[in-house]
Amino acid sequence: MKIAWIGTGVMGKPMASHLSAAGYQITAFNRTFEKAKALEPHIKAVETIKECVKDADFVFSIVGYPSDVEETYKEVMKHAKKGAILVDMTTSSPTLAIKLYEDAWKLGLRMLDAPVTGGDIGAINATLSIMVGGDKEVFETVLPLLKVMGKTITYMGKAGSGMHAKLANQTVIAGNIIGITEALVYAKVKGLDLEAMLGVITGGSANSWQAQYNGAKMINKDYTPGFFVKHYLKDLKLVIEEKKDLKLAGVEYACKAYQILSDHGFQESGTQSIIEYYLRNMM
Amino acid sequence: MKIAWIGTGVMGKPMASHLSAAGYQITAFNRTFEKAKALEPHIKAVETIKECVKDADFVFSIVGYPSDVEETYKEVMKHAKKGAILVDMTTSSPTLAIKLYEDAWKLGLRMLDAPVTGGDIGAINATLSIMVGGDKEVFETVLPLLKVMGKTITYMGKAGSGMHAKLANQTVIAGNIIGITEALVYAKVKGLDLEAMLGVITGGSANSWQAQYNGAKMINKDYTPGFFVKHYLKDLKLVIEEKKDLKLAGVEYACKAYQILSDHGFQESGTQSIIEYYLRNMM
Repeated sequence: MKIAWIGTGVMGKPMASHLSAAGYQITAFNRTFEKAKALEPHIKAVETIKECVKDADFVFSIVGYPSDVEETYKEVMKHAKKGAILVDMTTSSPTLAIKLYEDAWKLGLRMLDAPVTGGDIGAINATLSIMVGGDKEVFETVLPLLKVMGKTITYMGKAGSGMHAKLANQTVIAGNIIGITEALVYAKVKGLDLEAMLGVITGGSANSWQAQYNGAKMINKDYTPGFFVKHYLKDLKLVIEEKKDLKLAGVEYACKAYQILSDHGFQESGTQSIIEYYLRNMM
Repeated sequence: MKIAWIGTGVMGKPMASHLSAAGYQITAFNRTFEKAKALEPHIKAVETIKECVKDADFVFSIVGYPSDVEETYKEVMKHAKKGAILVDMTTSSPTLAIKLYEDAWKLGLRMLDAPVTGGDIGAINATLSIMVGGDKEVFETVLPLLKVMGKTITYMGKAGSGMHAKLANQTVIAGNIIGITEALVYAKVKGLDLEAMLGVITGGSANSWQAQYNGAKMINKDYTPGFFVKHYLKDLKLVIEEKKDLKLAGVEYACKAYQILSDHGFQESGTQSIIEYYLRNMM
């Protein structure tokens, strides 16, 4: 069984390495060739998508933006062998995922959308949560491979459903982050001890993963990225694009805030830097 | 040592009972006398605030709205004995708390604001989180009594700080609830399996106490109150009142949504009923 891996960045590198360590034969492509090359000798690096996918039974990809996904799969579909299963793990557009699924089907290929959560730590520790859309039987074929890379693998439904689930997950986080930030800004203005405040928040019904992970960073103005503003903004824009006339005030506000932060040089900061948006009164 | 207890409702009743069980001598007043009477013989019920507080070393109160607090303390301050320590545990206005603290001081009384989180379950199990504002040495005097009623007791700073901390806590929850609701509504519109979606949310970086406690209720349209819309709306209005020109978009939106829900007959529903606001397109 041969596996093609496209995208060996901060997420793709450890994910492909887990498959390789589990004994699978991997051929990798990355736009910046050196990053793929660095995975040799365990993983074979090649300089074109064609070389990467032509003999593969499975093609996995995790690249940057929906435009990268589109460009990648234009090449993949030209060169993949009949019957191959394509799995895009990028957080990308559900509409694009559905289109690619249909294109693949017409070419005798199968496709899943399978974005992940858990960040680089989750990728390194193989504890990712993976949300999958596409045909159930294709999902079941790929499941053993996904289990090598992640801990919680959830089948969400037809093509596009994996992407939709990931976007819904990011929508929850928007609300969580806004709530924590507004509370800390309010507490600061009122002269409260912010460490004590965070203790109250994480000690009861206001507790969240985000408060535990980002709360202290917000207080200390530590904007070291766990998750980049530029990537989160991409995700939020996808929600806005997909939600159509559905009114989701929280996610709309978060998207606006992160756009403004991004315009002010915070693209490479962590999502917790949204507290600057409030403190600097950027709205 | 004599303790006066004002307000023997769903919260006050178990809280006063814990003090009584710990061996303290309690005299209780409640606007509806029968509710205080029901605590006899362990707790002595009286028909006026005057009778309740006149010999008390400590006066605790947990009533409904800021107007009830104001009315209660007008009487308390008339009749409390010099040196008595007054502790309002109602979630009420920080501005009012500061005023009462100052009034008390002038009369030779001491006052703390000490609102709680943890709901009726927390009150019954004595696991409340209690946030305290006022003079540090007064806090230390009252601490042993607070420890009988709660698990996490946090000194937040000068008078009003307990109320501010509680309002900040409610602000976090507004964001959390909005995020969960918008995600579930989006997921529903996109045809995802909502149980699977909630599993994804609670399994990773979108997890929160609110998602765990209210997520399934939202999916099942179970609006049984854990926390009443009418009480949460009161708290959110206090944040709006106190935040002055600070722009807190999340809490402002939540306040608007809960006001509309309240106007449509959801006052007695649980806060998770906000999903109806989105589903019915009430905005």
